[in-house]
Amino acid sequence: MSVLPLEPFTRAEDRDPDSQTQKVARAVYEHIRASKLKAGDTLPSEGAFAEELGVSRGIVREAIRALTAVSIVDVGNGRRARVGAVDQQVFAILIDHAIRTEQVSVQQVWDLRRSIELRTAALAAMRRTDEEAAVITQHAAGMRAAYPDIAEITRHDFAFHRTIAQATRNPLYELIIAAFGVVIEETGPVGWHSRPDESERVAVFDMHDAIAAAIRQRDPTRAEQAMADHFDLSVKALVNAGVR
Amino acid sequence: MSVLPLEPFTRAEDRDPDSQTQKVARAVYEHIRASKLKAGDTLPSEGAFAEELGVSRGIVREAIRALTAVSIVDVGNGRRARVGAVDQQVFAILIDHAIRTEQVSVQQVWDLRRSIELRTAALAAMRRTDEEAAVITQHAAGMRAAYPDIAEITRHDFAFHRTIAQATRNPLYELIIAAFGVVIEETGPVGWHSRPDESERVAVFDMHDAIAAAIRQRDPTRAEQAMADHFDLSVKALVNAGVR
Repeated sequence: MSVLPLEPFTRAEDRDPDSQTQKVARAVYEHIRASKLKAGDTLPSEGAFAEELGVSRGIVREAIRALTAVSIVDVGNGRRARVGAVDQQVFAILIDHAIRTEQVSVQQVWDLRRSIELRTAALAAMRRTDEEAAVITQHAAGMRAAYPDIAEITRHDFAFHRTIAQATRNPLYELIIAAFGVVIEETGPVGWHSRPDESERVAVFDMHDAIAAAIRQRDPTRAEQAMADHFDLSVKALVNAGVR
Repeated sequence: MSVLPLEPFTRAEDRDPDSQTQKVARAVYEHIRASKLKAGDTLPSEGAFAEELGVSRGIVREAIRALTAVSIVDVGNGRRARVGAVDQQVFAILIDHAIRTEQVSVQQVWDLRRSIELRTAALAAMRRTDEEAAVITQHAAGMRAAYPDIAEITRHDFAFHRTIAQATRNPLYELIIAAFGVVIEETGPVGWHSRPDESERVAVFDMHDAIAAAIRQRDPTRAEQAMADHFDLSVKALVNAGVR
């Protein structure tokens, strides 16, 4: 039973404390929608919600905490609760949990990444700032320079993909790519150790350079193609390493 | 301040009750990872966590509730807490919240949908069961038959896309497409009203038929192309309707 809003509240168990919390969480969520509040706007006090809904302040506090967990509400140190900004960490934890509990496989995550990153490469080539183009280029160079420090290569690799997502000017892409951080951190090293020879490792660096160059030159078609080549090689490496 | 795990706990405010909850939530999450628990597996009792971590049962209960909100833990009526299954509703609420608080625009959601659904169409053509092919075909036909009942068209439309996502055999796709339900429900009617003439409406039905046919005939290239045509037309309709 979830403590989330948007659930119907017509069942017998609505009288138990968990369901009351759920009902209040829904009411708070509806208040944000109905009042057209934006991220950072202040919410009414716990007392005001308690009075309006005819429940204890303790229940309101619990409901606010549940909404805080999904970053719909943001509660600072003693500050009045505010409407929350979309939190990359929530997505990241959901993806991480799904992989660790084997509800999804690493290969399934990589297929989703591929679908999304063909597009982020193309959009970044069209919309990147000059500074973003420079940062993307630096991370590609940083990967090559960091060899054979795999942790450092992985750090540049993740920052490379994340900066491309950011350069799309669509926050949803950054949100989802950031959530893949955990997967990249853990499968990156596996992929590296599975590459049998030096030439394949060099190919990985060359591919990141090719993506960066296409984005720098504002060429979406070539950026997308270079990203596709990158994923084809990486997925092959994972398959060779026996990663499901 | 988030009640989520994976946060560092080295700060001064770690002694306040909210941070204690956060710390315990993290410990529970780490327990799930370290013990390699899967969805449905039972967690240790609140008392056991309280004793091991040296905190009150009340704090453990709050931490469990926070994890329940993101569906990492599932708590039934009086049952012992279990490891939760990935919850489509959590993604859906995050996306809904992001749109309503204007952190992302409808057009940005459509661009993400397009990136993902080109791939779901292709994968569905390769992996769909015969039953899924039949359901997809029925929803395409249902859209046309429902005209001019826009709510009913929208219902078939959403079920059509969701069944395609399901047919990919990759639960991440269904998770994300399901999260778009709210957007489809609200922008669907806007798109319809913006279509100036009958021929454009017929074109939408024809496109859904074309996608269904390609999936039925196991033709991933044609399925992807038909999905691209569909999105190009729909995005044009939204732009004409002035949807940001």
